[in-house]
Amino acid sequence: MKIITTINELQQTMKVHKKSQQTIGFVPTMGFLHEGHLKLMQEARSQNEIMIISIFVNPLQFGENEDFDSYPRNMERDSQLAKEAGADYIFAPSVNEMYKDEPSVTVKVEKRTDVLCGKSRAGHFDGVATVLTKLFNLVGPDRAYFGMKDAQQVAVVSGLISDFHFPVELVPIQTVREEDGLAKSSRNVYLSAEERKQAPHLYKALQTGREMMLKGEKSAETVIESVTSYLSAHTDGVIDYVEIYSYPELKALAELKGEVILAIAVKFTKARLIDNITIDLNDKE
Amino acid sequence: MKIITTINELQQTMKVHKKSQQTIGFVPTMGFLHEGHLKLMQEARSQNEIMIISIFVNPLQFGENEDFDSYPRNMERDSQLAKEAGADYIFAPSVNEMYKDEPSVTVKVEKRTDVLCGKSRAGHFDGVATVLTKLFNLVGPDRAYFGMKDAQQVAVVSGLISDFHFPVELVPIQTVREEDGLAKSSRNVYLSAEERKQAPHLYKALQTGREMMLKGEKSAETVIESVTSYLSAHTDGVIDYVEIYSYPELKALAELKGEVILAIAVKFTKARLIDNITIDLNDKE
Repeated sequence: MKIITTINELQQTMKVHKKSQQTIGFVPTMGFLHEGHLKLMQEARSQNEIMIISIFVNPLQFGENEDFDSYPRNMERDSQLAKEAGADYIFAPSVNEMYKDEPSVTVKVEKRTDVLCGKSRAGHFDGVATVLTKLFNLVGPDRAYFGMKDAQQVAVVSGLISDFHFPVELVPIQTVREEDGLAKSSRNVYLSAEERKQAPHLYKALQTGREMMLKGEKSAETVIESVTSYLSAHTDGVIDYVEIYSYPELKALAELKGEVILAIAVKFTKARLIDNITIDLNDKE
Repeated sequence: MKIITTINELQQTMKVHKKSQQTIGFVPTMGFLHEGHLKLMQEARSQNEIMIISIFVNPLQFGENEDFDSYPRNMERDSQLAKEAGADYIFAPSVNEMYKDEPSVTVKVEKRTDVLCGKSRAGHFDGVATVLTKLFNLVGPDRAYFGMKDAQQVAVVSGLISDFHFPVELVPIQTVREEDGLAKSSRNVYLSAEERKQAPHLYKALQTGREMMLKGEKSAETVIESVTSYLSAHTDGVIDYVEIYSYPELKALAELKGEVILAIAVKFTKARLIDNITIDLNDKE
């Protein structure tokens, strides 16, 4: 496995693989790799001849009050994990390498951002879409891998790829869970013992919603009320949101149908947990 | 020569050429082809194995009071001209094919737009950059050809390609001129006989500026005053602007050096003419 830090070397390297028509699987990350990333890398490894990950903490996607400087970094551990997962390359540029000057063009995400976590993160997805546009052009992947834990990001990337016609297949990877159903997250360690016991109820609440919809409930409001009640009854956390939209358009639904997402966010004392499920109601009409 | 109207057919077609590693030259246009376009096509034809032009009047780059509906179109004549110029393909999609829904992502041009013609055309270059991002990804050209008559557009495209790392070489083509120096433009027919006699003085005014700079004049203001005086003395047109910037950054220059652009716009009775020259002052220090 080779670590590449300059754009020039990346371009030269990928040109060789493109020329020999090898398939390229790409896993863009901000580093500090966890089991979710490992799953993405495993899939990318198994489906492509070349597997490359990027590790770049992208300043453009952090808000003014967000933790760009304190965002955790551990290149040594990351490169060990990437190597074990079978990566051929890590692209790990400096901020100066990726943004030599102030950008003269950026991507503006016009839709899918004013719901879920995006509501409180103005400009976040513009930064994500801008850096991915750069990375897609630099890496030229056949497939790009993203975790469904951040379903809104997957929705935005899906819009980016389809609207700009990137010749890239988006591969969404299901959320990795603990045995009791809790979505894996580096934030889970901040839960108290009691909160850790309650946390699996987030996923159970989602299952409750899923069952209602599969049984034919057509009102988003009714499902939201029910999931909210379940969460209130089973956790001490403060419910940030319980929302249902079409997926990946993230539009409000007068009537539940088609592909939908049910997503929740709950604030515990020291950790805000998010989780979601997508459900295909196309056969249920 | 083949006319392609759907994104799907374009993608399938270009995939074949990419796979056989043929070089692709691309000339994006809004149609109603004139001699400027012919020059672009000739260059693209001579430098690449495949030559493709697009004809698409892009609604995103027209302002609310601009003439999207009345913009001239003549597909029959255009396809004849493209064929004669040796084009392999014309990509001529409908608006609905290019923008099925309201865009969920667009490109925002952050720099190089608040000068020259861009000042009075808010959002114009966002529309240009957005459609080019789509077209670059669809066509996958090795080289893209743009006329220097619209030098600001070339500057914006240069920023788009370098910031987003498109694997495309930008080939700027010098302005085609009448024998008397007047830049060719479909708008020249709107000049009165007297105005047509005066119009070559636009290029002569630019030459005046060029000579001053080559002789060592370091003040943009002095050159601008001189070019403005020349225009006032030799034409009845209303001077819209005479401006000098670094090129392609389009930044104001305290001292004239490096690559610079001198650009002018003059309003005659029924036609607003623009012209420009770029000058490399790097050896003149």
